[in-house]
Amino acid sequence: MTDNIHKVTVLGTGVLGSQIAFQTAFHGFPVVAYDIDDKAVAAGRDRFSRLIKTYEAEADGAAGGRAQQAFERIRLTSDLADAVVDADLVIEAVPEVLDIKRDTYRKLADSAPQRAIFATNSSTLLPSDLKDFTGRPDRFLALHFANQIWRLNTAEVMGTADTDPDVYTAVVEFAKAIGMVPIELHREKAGYVLNSLLVPLLHAAAELAAGGYAEPETVDKTWKIATGAPVGPFQIFDIVGLTTPYNLMAHGDAESQRIAAWLKENYIDKGHLGVATGQGFYSYSH
Amino acid sequence: MTDNIHKVTVLGTGVLGSQIAFQTAFHGFPVVAYDIDDKAVAAGRDRFSRLIKTYEAEADGAAGGRAQQAFERIRLTSDLADAVVDADLVIEAVPEVLDIKRDTYRKLADSAPQRAIFATNSSTLLPSDLKDFTGRPDRFLALHFANQIWRLNTAEVMGTADTDPDVYTAVVEFAKAIGMVPIELHREKAGYVLNSLLVPLLHAAAELAAGGYAEPETVDKTWKIATGAPVGPFQIFDIVGLTTPYNLMAHGDAESQRIAAWLKENYIDKGHLGVATGQGFYSYSH
Repeated sequence: MTDNIHKVTVLGTGVLGSQIAFQTAFHGFPVVAYDIDDKAVAAGRDRFSRLIKTYEAEADGAAGGRAQQAFERIRLTSDLADAVVDADLVIEAVPEVLDIKRDTYRKLADSAPQRAIFATNSSTLLPSDLKDFTGRPDRFLALHFANQIWRLNTAEVMGTADTDPDVYTAVVEFAKAIGMVPIELHREKAGYVLNSLLVPLLHAAAELAAGGYAEPETVDKTWKIATGAPVGPFQIFDIVGLTTPYNLMAHGDAESQRIAAWLKENYIDKGHLGVATGQGFYSYSH
Repeated sequence: MTDNIHKVTVLGTGVLGSQIAFQTAFHGFPVVAYDIDDKAVAAGRDRFSRLIKTYEAEADGAAGGRAQQAFERIRLTSDLADAVVDADLVIEAVPEVLDIKRDTYRKLADSAPQRAIFATNSSTLLPSDLKDFTGRPDRFLALHFANQIWRLNTAEVMGTADTDPDVYTAVVEFAKAIGMVPIELHREKAGYVLNSLLVPLLHAAAELAAGGYAEPETVDKTWKIATGAPVGPFQIFDIVGLTTPYNLMAHGDAESQRIAAWLKENYIDKGHLGVATGQGFYSYSH
C-alpha cells in the first residue's frame, strides 16, 4: 500500500503543519507545503529554517546536513491547486475552525487527483464532521500528530465508517515510513487516545489544586513517585500550555467551569501560560 | 514535634499493615504489631519473615543484617490493650469495614494513653467518618501508605477540621523519619491525591478499550511515548490488580457499570486479575 504514497502535500505551515512537512521531508519524501498567502508562506519558511536547527540539536540522524537536505525537499506555495495537483497524500493542518476546514476540503476536492488520500490533523473535530466535503469519504481519515513530532512520535490514525480499509492501512504504513509510531483507533473518538487519557488526568489534578486539597508540587511529586513518570500533571500542563485545557474546561460542566475560573484568575490572567511564556505552575526563567 | 513519637503500634498485620510495621522498625523505631487472634498473629509473623527477604533484595540499606534487626524490633501480640498501653502513635490498618474500624477505635480510645496519636491507613473512608469514635478527634488523622512501601514511599497525610496542627506536623515529621515522602493534604478528599488522579486515568483507559476504540497495548504505547512514563494505564491496572478498580466501577454510574461489565466478562471471570495471578491485560507467566 505504501507504494502508493510518494508525494505528500501539507496544508498549513503553522506550528504543527510545519513539523509534519519537515518530518515527512526528513524521511525522504518530496513535500509541498501550502499556506494561504505570501506572508503566511514566508512565516512558514522561517519555521522550516528554525526546524533545521532543532532537528540538528534534537532529532536522531539529523547530523551531516540531513536536516538541511530535508528543507530542500520542501516546496512552498500559496497556490492550492498547484500544491495538490500531483499529491498522493494531502495532510490538512489548517486552523481548527470548522468553516475554514470545510472550505479547504471543498477546494481540495476539485483540485486534487482522484487517487489522492486526504488526512486531517484536526485535534477537536471528528473526520465524520468533514467527510462530506472531501468528495471522497472512502479516501479520507484523520492522522493526528503531537507537538515536537521528532520526539513525541505518535501518529493517531482514525477513520470513519466510510474509510476504505486499504486507505487506512496505507496511511498506517506511511506513518511508519516517516518515523512515527502509528496509534490505530478502530472507531471515532473525540480526543483520540492521547487526549482521552490526558484530559481526565489534568482535570483531576486541577481539581485537587483548585479545591485547596493539595499544592501542584505535591500532586506532581505523588504522581512521579507512584507511577515512575518523569513529569507530573502540572508539569504536563506547563508543557502543553494552559490555554487549551483552560478553553476545554471553560466550556465544560459546572465543576469544570469552577476549575477554569481558578486557572484564569491565578495563571491565565497573569500571563503564566506554561513553558512557552517562561512561567506556568512552575518558573522556567533562566 | 517528632520527639514525641518514639513508640509505634500498628493495628493489623495484613499486606499493608505488615509493611507499615516493618518499614517503621527498619528505620529504628520499636514497633508493636497487633492482630486479632493467634492465627492472625502467626500469619503476620510469616509476612514479616518474607519482608526480611524482600527488603534485603529490594530496599536500600537493607544488607548487613539490617532487615533482620528490623524484624527483631517488632513485637507481635493479639492483646489490644497490651499493644497500645505505651504507644505514642497508633497506626490503624484493620480491614476496610466501617463497623470493624469503629469497634477498633472504641476499644483503642479506652486503652491507649491520652498522649497517643491515632492514624488511620484507610483508603476508602475519610477520617471524619471515624473521628467521633476515637475519643480524641484533635489527635486523629489519616496516614495513607501505598503497597510496596519500601519502593513506593508516599505517605499521604490528611486531617479533619478537628486535627491539631501540631499533631499533623508531628505525623509529617514521623513519615519523613521512616523514609517516606509526606504528601500533605490541606482538606479531606476521598481517594487522597494518588487515587484522585489514578482512578480517572484508569477509567478513561478502560473506556477506550471497552468501547472498542483501541487495544490496551495501543493505549499503553501512546501514554508511554507521550508522557515518558515507564508504564501505561493497563500495566498500572495489572500492578494494582483489577479487583479494586472493578469494584469501584461496578458501583459507579451507567458508563462505569458498562466498563465494569466488560472487565468482568473479559478478565475478572477468567481469573485474569493482574500481575498477582500471572495474567491480567498482559501475561506474566514465566
